[in-house]
Amino acid sequence: MKHTAILLIHCPDSTGLVARVSSFIFEHKGNILHADQHLDSRQGMFLMRVEWEMDGFDLDLPSFASAFEPLARKHGMHWRLADSTVKQKVALFVSKQDHCLADLLYRHRIGELHCDIAMVISNHSDAEPLARAAGLPFHHTPVDPDNRGAAEQRQFQLLDEGQIDLVILARYMQVLSSEFVDRYPLRIINVHHSFLPAFIGSHPYQRAFERGVKLIGATSHYATSSLDEGPIIEQEIERVSHRDELDDLIRKGRDLEKITLARAMRWHLEHRVLVYANKTVVFV
Amino acid sequence: MKHTAILLIHCPDSTGLVARVSSFIFEHKGNILHADQHLDSRQGMFLMRVEWEMDGFDLDLPSFASAFEPLARKHGMHWRLADSTVKQKVALFVSKQDHCLADLLYRHRIGELHCDIAMVISNHSDAEPLARAAGLPFHHTPVDPDNRGAAEQRQFQLLDEGQIDLVILARYMQVLSSEFVDRYPLRIINVHHSFLPAFIGSHPYQRAFERGVKLIGATSHYATSSLDEGPIIEQEIERVSHRDELDDLIRKGRDLEKITLARAMRWHLEHRVLVYANKTVVFV
Amino acid sequence: MKHTAILLIHCPDSTGLVARVSSFIFEHKGNILHADQHLDSRQGMFLMRVEWEMDGFDLDLPSFASAFEPLARKHGMHWRLADSTVKQKVALFVSKQDHCLADLLYRHRIGELHCDIAMVISNHSDAEPLARAAGLPFHHTPVDPDNRGAAEQRQFQLLDEGQIDLVILARYMQVLSSEFVDRYPLRIINVHHSFLPAFIGSHPYQRAFERGVKLIGATSHYATSSLDEGPIIEQEIERVSHRDELDDLIRKGRDLEKITLARAMRWHLEHRVLVYANKTVVFV
Amino acid sequence: MKHTAILLIHCPDSTGLVARVSSFIFEHKGNILHADQHLDSRQGMFLMRVEWEMDGFDLDLPSFASAFEPLARKHGMHWRLADSTVKQKVALFVSKQDHCLADLLYRHRIGELHCDIAMVISNHSDAEPLARAAGLPFHHTPVDPDNRGAAEQRQFQLLDEGQIDLVILARYMQVLSSEFVDRYPLRIINVHHSFLPAFIGSHPYQRAFERGVKLIGATSHYATSSLDEGPIIEQEIERVSHRDELDDLIRKGRDLEKITLARAMRWHLEHRVLVYANKTVVFV
Repeated sequence: MKHTAILLIHCPDSTGLVARVSSFIFEHKGNILHADQHLDSRQGMFLMRVEWEMDGFDLDLPSFASAFEPLARKHGMHWRLADSTVKQKVALFVSKQDHCLADLLYRHRIGELHCDIAMVISNHSDAEPLARAAGLPFHHTPVDPDNRGAAEQRQFQLLDEGQIDLVILARYMQVLSSEFVDRYPLRIINVHHSFLPAFIGSHPYQRAFERGVKLIGATSHYATSSLDEGPIIEQEIERVSHRDELDDLIRKGRDLEKITLARAMRWHLEHRVLVYANKTVVFV
Repeated sequence: MKHTAILLIHCPDSTGLVARVSSFIFEHKGNILHADQHLDSRQGMFLMRVEWEMDGFDLDLPSFASAFEPLARKHGMHWRLADSTVKQKVALFVSKQDHCLADLLYRHRIGELHCDIAMVISNHSDAEPLARAAGLPFHHTPVDPDNRGAAEQRQFQLLDEGQIDLVILARYMQVLSSEFVDRYPLRIINVHHSFLPAFIGSHPYQRAFERGVKLIGATSHYATSSLDEGPIIEQEIERVSHRDELDDLIRKGRDLEKITLARAMRWHLEHRVLVYANKTVVFV
Repeated sequence: MKHTAILLIHCPDSTGLVARVSSFIFEHKGNILHADQHLDSRQGMFLMRVEWEMDGFDLDLPSFASAFEPLARKHGMHWRLADSTVKQKVALFVSKQDHCLADLLYRHRIGELHCDIAMVISNHSDAEPLARAAGLPFHHTPVDPDNRGAAEQRQFQLLDEGQIDLVILARYMQVLSSEFVDRYPLRIINVHHSFLPAFIGSHPYQRAFERGVKLIGATSHYATSSLDEGPIIEQEIERVSHRDELDDLIRKGRDLEKITLARAMRWHLEHRVLVYANKTVVFV
Repeated sequence: MKHTAILLIHCPDSTGLVARVSSFIFEHKGNILHADQHLDSRQGMFLMRVEWEMDGFDLDLPSFASAFEPLARKHGMHWRLADSTVKQKVALFVSKQDHCLADLLYRHRIGELHCDIAMVISNHSDAEPLARAAGLPFHHTPVDPDNRGAAEQRQFQLLDEGQIDLVILARYMQVLSSEFVDRYPLRIINVHHSFLPAFIGSHPYQRAFERGVKLIGATSHYATSSLDEGPIIEQEIERVSHRDELDDLIRKGRDLEKITLARAMRWHLEHRVLVYANKTVVFV
């Protein structure tokens, strides 16, 4: 794996932004591997992802900020810099159904997901053996319907101790509080088992079955305080027919959920996702 | 094209239905080409489509009813019989956007759609040249917002005169009255430019764009008195990204609409669609 | 799970076959749940799958044969009868890459695959931990390039001892001998990592990458003595672009292989696949 | 439609290329709308598409070359510049089947394809009415199997007179000579009715049917002197089953051919396609 830096920028559009950013990198002897830029002309918003080799680059990343800041300030840039060799710390949340969890653990094992999976957290104990088999700490944080906050307090503690960068809701069937969401802005990825905005809320397969749709879907998105309303990262669908019972929809849906969540997680870990106006730009 | 008969049945399930129906056909010397059966075990509903060669069959279709009726009555069957050589009479409704109209006319010309297209009806005059070029009568029935019923009365007259069997709403952007829908139960096919039930109602592409979905869709369905709530016949989707402007969604959507509507229309014409519980069984 | 019988038939077409088969079942008090029939009119071949409830059926399955044989003989039927409650015994073959193996083991654990997985066999030892974790015997049968037959002899012994019904080649990268294939006719399912017949043979992703295709695929098929030429059961594809390196093709391909093989295996286990003329009819 | 310039570049990779190109544009007061860059690290090949507004840009396009050439020469760039307002002149070639022709004419009429369609050329006369109805010159150039060159000589004359930029083979069923291909390098787009490289050559649907594939496809590609071997621009597939007769494959294939060819043509017209190493980079 090459040692690279990834810079994500969004700011109001103005002439010369690509030139200024790429020239800055060039002046510091960075060789650009990928540069991708997008202009949302309705919103006048400039968005860019640029990745360059650290080999030969004459700034280390801590000193990048002070060198880049004048340019950034001048153009009102929101920017993030990432080091490709730094592994983010991830917590996987799961409830009873563990297909996404098993899938992510497998993908991690064979190197598809560049991160440290630091822990598995669940409101049930079913997933414990799977987590243990992967050598991961498992934390059982049962949710008392009369005191939902207590479980979250325990979770916050775990996440803090683990210095968690990213929370993955791998079929975690509890609604997060606003406090939780606000602690990890755009750092919580959920998978919803429908093609959003169809079938927002509970029992989407049941409702898809009753409605007689011919395609079912799954959606991975950043969690926000509005349930199922966060910025969509990825969606997938599969064909169903009258021959498919509800159980078939659920079975087919599992594959959609696994693939959709894994893609979204990988893109996030590779710093490919920019969010603005409750939408995502995915630089792939 | 072979001369065949197609029988569509739905009724409460009971033992021996496949045997009784297929034996009836066999006793009358019909050679079954296709037999497809479905059991909705939740509803205890038996559904069947069977198609056999008329060559050798010892009943003509008018006399089929009296021969079959005792069996049908005994089992509470709803049934329809169709003759593959009989062309249904179709009216195409369109507003300003004519991509579905042009597509259906082309498919009809090359033999994909086994029917007589009897007329084109529109609340605008834009599509007239296209209809004329295809040698079809074009009826302009402008809709006065203060007197919507007048246009429909004129349309009823045209449909009656043309002995229309099937109404296709090929991007006809007016809501039909309940009276209209009731006159053509399960004989009006609409295409909605979204993946229902997402984005029910108006401006679905605009709303899809604003929501930032990663897939857009189209849905063909039977029109019922509840807008966009009728039984779904077919759906298709296509991937979009942040690079797609609203115009790109609309452009991509046109292909989805064309394909979805053409499939639904063909399946209907080939007597492949059975409706129950506001869902379709499509025997393909 | 309901106790059902599944009958698969293919024979030369003649009038009355659906009636005769369904009447036979009805006379013995079987309630048909699913009946699906197909006529290949070019080959004059009749194919049928019928599934009925054993509850109330007045033949046990061992006595079915003698009762059904006169009818079968008269019409030249090839037929197979299966009991839905009988679990087939399956051997999973794998080489170094274990993504299909892990996927099938997971699906089996949660009940997607109705069978007994009796053993894992590999020419490498890499997959042993995965097999052990699933509580399965693991047999390491290394293949000596100078004596390929020896490994197969050992494998035959294992398969015989395990009374194996179905062999799944879950990315097993050795070519089977004709003797092996002949021992398990239409009971060996392979997954090939391309969209057959494109890229038959070795290194399909490499060749797809070099050719610059825009879609890659995977194919599951019954193994025959002609490499990659057996009857195709299922295929899937995914879009790729110039941004995808060879490693990305391989990564995307893994998901295609998993899904394609799992579907084919499930359909086989559910007795949904009929083969004739080197093609499959999949009754789904 | 905005007045923009589009620059396509490919050259050996070296540090600073994005900076130099974007700075060049910035220095001349061009506001970049889209910049997309790709590095083929295996081949050490740098590829870029950049589009900027002409409003405010201080070079006119004829003078761009002399200003840009020093930079281009220094880095060994192959480059092309296009003016978004200039419509390319297109000749559509067709044989008997006119579904792609009709589709492209319709898309052109509603503004999906930014070009001048200058003529329709065919070895049959079937498509003449369609061409005439679109107000286009139709040239019948029958192909004498004993003197194939004569038809091409006539075609060259027509293409020269029409100053044709792009040739679209919209199901033109004649093989072009090397001379033809060499006259329009990377300016002839063909649609092949299979998922290449499967079923290269003639009768792909027939062969797909016989092989029993579960997906069929279509491929649009630049024509080269090697039949069906040119750089692939786009591919699409659709699912088929045992119920699909050869005619169904052909029918389904028509939709794939239409969509695949229309996309490839649009991308070419929008200067989104770069070719190197017999592969395409499609900047979408």
